[in-house]
Amino acid sequence: MNERLEKELSFLLECDRMKSIYRQTYILADESRGMSMREFEGEEQSYHRRENDAEHSFHLVLFAMVLAEHSNEEIDLLKVIKMVTVHDIVEIDAGDTYCYDKEGCKTKADREKKAADRLFGLLPEDMCREFRSLWEEFERNDTPESRFANALDRMQPMLLNYTKGGISWKEHGAAYEMVRERNCVIEKGSEALWEKMSACLEDARSRGML
Amino acid sequence: MNERLEKELSFLLECDRMKSIYRQTYILADESRGMSMREFEGEEQSYHRRENDAEHSFHLVLFAMVLAEHSNEEIDLLKVIKMVTVHDIVEIDAGDTYCYDKEGCKTKADREKKAADRLFGLLPEDMCREFRSLWEEFERNDTPESRFANALDRMQPMLLNYTKGGISWKEHGAAYEMVRERNCVIEKGSEALWEKMSACLEDARSRGML
Repeated sequence: MNERLEKELSFLLECDRMKSIYRQTYILADESRGMSMREFEGEEQSYHRRENDAEHSFHLVLFAMVLAEHSNEEIDLLKVIKMVTVHDIVEIDAGDTYCYDKEGCKTKADREKKAADRLFGLLPEDMCREFRSLWEEFERNDTPESRFANALDRMQPMLLNYTKGGISWKEHGAAYEMVRERNCVIEKGSEALWEKMSACLEDARSRGML
Repeated sequence: MNERLEKELSFLLECDRMKSIYRQTYILADESRGMSMREFEGEEQSYHRRENDAEHSFHLVLFAMVLAEHSNEEIDLLKVIKMVTVHDIVEIDAGDTYCYDKEGCKTKADREKKAADRLFGLLPEDMCREFRSLWEEFERNDTPESRFANALDRMQPMLLNYTKGGISWKEHGAAYEMVRERNCVIEKGSEALWEKMSACLEDARSRGML
């Protein structure tokens, strides 16, 4: 029992590193509000700060809770939430691979497999199997829960980026067709959410964000 | 339906601010690793960075998934996860009140109630009721799920702080008795986790962290 708890805690402490893996997406951080990071010494540059994996995953849990009703298929919400919580843990070792980085994408699967071996391997065996199987199901994207979880994982950065005037699309010179093609997988998880995001994309194009 | 989705999205976007509410607890951020925030331009000061509410809440979801088996009572894991996801949202308006800040604690309940009205009020009515009731149950701490969720909410910062050599205890000159008294509520959610955290506290005292 004691050994089991020690394993669990060492995994949980290792996952603290999710807070230091930065993604391409920026947080919104409205400057118009009084209560802001500006008030924290030494953090003045934090506007236009990228979000990290812990923040992204937290946001996805909330997206899952709020948007579950828009899933095309009936889903087990607990499983979706577990999946989005676990889906980026491999990046602790493998790093975040930007979706339009072709070189990085070539080695991604291999790097992430090794990361899964080490990281989930910190857990007691039964939990290791559960976490690994959640991650693999997410990656395969072939069940109602994984289709919905993947839809949210695509939708969240798109929505932030759109709300922030297309900042990271502009940074990377992303083209409308490319973004649309990458994200149309949202439709497999939720037609309603894809309809909304399509409209955002059209609007982004018409306003020169793409 | 469209109006409903718009409400849901405006709530989800508002919750992005959780990423800018900083707590007293520090992230671990091991400097010995190659892949670090140092590599990100302008973020050099990020060691000894405090964690924000989004990161804290994400960590709690993971704590719930991994440590559920140590709850004293049988729990509905989905409900625990929803509760820890929702429990700090009020801080978007009310700010983080440091647990040993006596003045702040006097006005906390009132500030948080107003925040709950506005923030959960962004959601469609049925969801507003669900989220609010999860938050209230967490605050009342009188059900198996809320006892376990509160145990995790106390345990996570304690474990980070202990692992990081007692950094925020030292900063605030926290005394052993005070920390023990505040955190013994963990026992109500999980005797096994309190046993472990008590041992950490004893060790912290013997090593001069407190």
